[in-house]
Amino acid sequence: MFRFPAARLRQLASPLLKRGARRTQTSGAEHALGPRNLQRPFWTSGKVLLFSALTGTTTYYYGATDAQHPRFHMPWMNYSGPRYASKADMEKAVGELRYALGEDSISTDDEDLLLHGYSEWSSINIDQLPVAVAYPKSTEEVSKIAQVCHRYKIPMIPYSGGSSLEANFSAPYGGMSIDFSFMDQILSLHEEDMDVVVQPSVPWMSLNEQIKGSGLFFPVDPGPSARIGGMVGTSCSGTNAVRYGTMKDWVINLTVVLADGTIIKTRRRPRKSSAGYNLTNLFVGSEGTLGLVTEITLKLTVIPQDTSVAVVTFPTIRDAAAAASTVMRAGIPVAAMEIMDEVQMSVINRAGTTAKKWNEAPTMFFKFSGTKAGVQENVKLVKAIAKAHKSGDFEFAVDAEEQKTLWSARKESLWSMLALRREGDEVWSTDVAVPLSRLPDIIEISKKEMDDLGLFASILGHIGDGNFHESIMYNSKDPKERAAVEKCIKDMVDRALEMEGTCTGEHGIGLGKKDSLMKELGIDTINVMKSIKQALDPYWLMNPGKIMDIPT
Amino acid sequence: MFRFPAARLRQLASPLLKRGARRTQTSGAEHALGPRNLQRPFWTSGKVLLFSALTGTTTYYYGATDAQHPRFHMPWMNYSGPRYASKADMEKAVGELRYALGEDSISTDDEDLLLHGYSEWSSINIDQLPVAVAYPKSTEEVSKIAQVCHRYKIPMIPYSGGSSLEANFSAPYGGMSIDFSFMDQILSLHEEDMDVVVQPSVPWMSLNEQIKGSGLFFPVDPGPSARIGGMVGTSCSGTNAVRYGTMKDWVINLTVVLADGTIIKTRRRPRKSSAGYNLTNLFVGSEGTLGLVTEITLKLTVIPQDTSVAVVTFPTIRDAAAAASTVMRAGIPVAAMEIMDEVQMSVINRAGTTAKKWNEAPTMFFKFSGTKAGVQENVKLVKAIAKAHKSGDFEFAVDAEEQKTLWSARKESLWSMLALRREGDEVWSTDVAVPLSRLPDIIEISKKEMDDLGLFASILGHIGDGNFHESIMYNSKDPKERAAVEKCIKDMVDRALEMEGTCTGEHGIGLGKKDSLMKELGIDTINVMKSIKQALDPYWLMNPGKIMDIPT
Repeated sequence: MFRFPAARLRQLASPLLKRGARRTQTSGAEHALGPRNLQRPFWTSGKVLLFSALTGTTTYYYGATDAQHPRFHMPWMNYSGPRYASKADMEKAVGELRYALGEDSISTDDEDLLLHGYSEWSSINIDQLPVAVAYPKSTEEVSKIAQVCHRYKIPMIPYSGGSSLEANFSAPYGGMSIDFSFMDQILSLHEEDMDVVVQPSVPWMSLNEQIKGSGLFFPVDPGPSARIGGMVGTSCSGTNAVRYGTMKDWVINLTVVLADGTIIKTRRRPRKSSAGYNLTNLFVGSEGTLGLVTEITLKLTVIPQDTSVAVVTFPTIRDAAAAASTVMRAGIPVAAMEIMDEVQMSVINRAGTTAKKWNEAPTMFFKFSGTKAGVQENVKLVKAIAKAHKSGDFEFAVDAEEQKTLWSARKESLWSMLALRREGDEVWSTDVAVPLSRLPDIIEISKKEMDDLGLFASILGHIGDGNFHESIMYNSKDPKERAAVEKCIKDMVDRALEMEGTCTGEHGIGLGKKDSLMKELGIDTINVMKSIKQALDPYWLMNPGKIMDIPT
Repeated sequence: MFRFPAARLRQLASPLLKRGARRTQTSGAEHALGPRNLQRPFWTSGKVLLFSALTGTTTYYYGATDAQHPRFHMPWMNYSGPRYASKADMEKAVGELRYALGEDSISTDDEDLLLHGYSEWSSINIDQLPVAVAYPKSTEEVSKIAQVCHRYKIPMIPYSGGSSLEANFSAPYGGMSIDFSFMDQILSLHEEDMDVVVQPSVPWMSLNEQIKGSGLFFPVDPGPSARIGGMVGTSCSGTNAVRYGTMKDWVINLTVVLADGTIIKTRRRPRKSSAGYNLTNLFVGSEGTLGLVTEITLKLTVIPQDTSVAVVTFPTIRDAAAAASTVMRAGIPVAAMEIMDEVQMSVINRAGTTAKKWNEAPTMFFKFSGTKAGVQENVKLVKAIAKAHKSGDFEFAVDAEEQKTLWSARKESLWSMLALRREGDEVWSTDVAVPLSRLPDIIEISKKEMDDLGLFASILGHIGDGNFHESIMYNSKDPKERAAVEKCIKDMVDRALEMEGTCTGEHGIGLGKKDSLMKELGIDTINVMKSIKQALDPYWLMNPGKIMDIPT
């Protein structure tokens, strides 16, 4: 029979037990076991140690098994939420990465940090900045950065064009901004397959410029300075959406570096697939909270043979919206259909961004494209519809140059607004989307409310998608004005939700719209997002604070 | 100072300790602590109990915390994988549901079980069937079913049209089939918003029939008997994909019952959104492994003013594919572009499903739609391209009736094949997708291989998407022939993957293509899918065995 070798262990441990050992001689009869202070420590008893070890192993197992239960939560778990690196750890991490990737690979320069944490276009800015900026040159380098950040628990915030509007690249928990500036190459163009593989820092306008010789183009057209990485992150769209859809319809695959540095590719290069979960469209629109996108395969489409641009005014926004609705229901394949209110038109005049002097009335911008005959037919049909809704005369661009000029008024609307700022002014730009039939209502109500509040604000909208933007200029130094703007925006979002819409059509949630997202979808749906987030990024390192609050 | 009340506890516990109490008198001097058998059990000592309790609590905490680590795994965890309900539990569950939802709500009829586990179209069938079929009438009833199944750990397998091809609704782990037959209503049509809310068992053809008065239609056109639920599950597509895209592009929101009965809605009803994760597109294509879809809001589009259907033969598939490629690169917006090889044309002739006698040569089916002028222009352009690639003469349908006839040859290709079966024959139908430029290659190689193996097989393809189907007829009673077919299919999938394609363009993974999926995407990407699955369905109850193997 096995007897626990207590005596033997005691012998071996005797130097430690000297104190106890000297006392094994009983010297009194106070207690059958001897005076307490003369016994050796109880926990040195072999039986006690074994008993505790067995207890401990069993309870460890139970703890681990219980914790696998999906809803298991004990108060001390994740207390005060994810714990991020200390300053010392950050410095160690930066040192390691500089050693591995080169001295220039990580910047801690103050100006750099400011550029990567503050955005003059964003509706919100915070004081906290990232504490370092990394400049990887390849997927493998991004993986290395992620591995180090994962080990030290450093937040990672991806950055490409920096043109987002909801503080999407801000760093509320500090951490490392990962700027893909050096990853700005078109890796391969497959003309016959009509797709292209790019790195995240390729600007979409530059992409189209570089590939135009193939007769193909990438039709998603957000703000002019946007880059593919951020476009993927926000699942953006642009004026072409009414014909071509949004970012999520144009991504074939993504190469993603996960929070722990694992590199995955969501798909190979087929035009369509039903193979397993659509991970591509999970990462598109995830705003960098699930992983770092390092390569993107995009679908391309054929540059239309002919394009025509026209502008036409309407007496009211409602007339314009009614015309737009008729165009949509008639199935006329307009390439783009945008509306800008009279305030926005006056802004363009004042900013002088285009040479033209605009009529300061609700204006619709149309783009037609296709074959020559197709374009002519579309123009004819749309003109008739517009006229039936009290439009003014159509004004067509006579050539490609004038098309650019006319359209630039639309593309540079935000910049025009920004250009009019006086000292201390800020511009709050936001977007919501509603079912098509409700767009006229929400525009009208929002305009009225802005007028009532005495705010200077303009409206522009992707009227074929039910998506409109509101840009409000206000004096940032006046807290009352700021509060009025916030209320205005909040009310607009609430209204959009009441109309079964969404709190953001294309800008993303970022920091500013987390509450709106919760209101839009409810706690159960948000919890599904949280579960997915937790599964892919258990330490909440990927762009923490965006889309959802970190657990506390 | 606090002294642990050992004496007091001992007093209280004295009846239990009688044995020990009697022995506190030392009677020998063998050991300073007294003879072992005269001491009370060591574990009754307060100190020992406290020590063990502290150890136990601490190790429990450590066990639970360790288990939260994403890669944590100890051998005894999840040993033998998810454990499903015993027979007795199944019976209890069925009883509870019949009590809650009505006697007729659950069927255990043998024929029902067979219908819900076996598919004559599927490439694979297994012996195991579901052990019950539930017929919910509403989302709340589905939630109730899920709650009960969750409690008893019963697999749940959603079923609507039953037209899937990869054993997608088979029940390898038994469990409950959930048939949405009673949930076949169009809930609301929003004409001005161009969307419609439907239940899962609405057939897409019936949907279009019911809503045509609005001038709108739903353009995703898979097999004729498919229903919306299954179409969502497989992220299917059809002949219209080249112009309109696939299922994932047409779903605005889903109402989903999760594994534990929680009901979520992924989005409200805007035409586009960037608000949070794209959960809609995560569930689309998840083959019922993440939740049960009970309501779907679908985008609609305008019925084109004019439609034209034409068929044209080519000397070889390669010629046809070259013509198709030129059409795509020219950006001609064909509504559909399908190819069928000479074997498939002969099958249609022999099956007699259409009144027409077909030329048994590689044939392309074109659909043109748009305005009258637009259609004429497209036809002209395509004719020129086809002629330049050695086509025969175009044969146009003169009216809508003949359009239907011509197109039915395409839509009923699988059924024609099935109709030719002799006793003991089965048809294995599968699909892969490759980059557009590789389609001619893979078709040619696959055909050659089938000929070499002496198999009777036909090819048909969505030539504008790089997606083709192979249907092989074989004698199921001959194991050698079956093995040859399996090898043929496997090689075709491998070839598609080598060409950077996908193992399934629109049929889904089901049971049959799990290995192919692993090969296509690799273990790291599959692990991301598994993490998501585990997060949403920790007990692996949702359609277990599909897409991924259950953990063991």
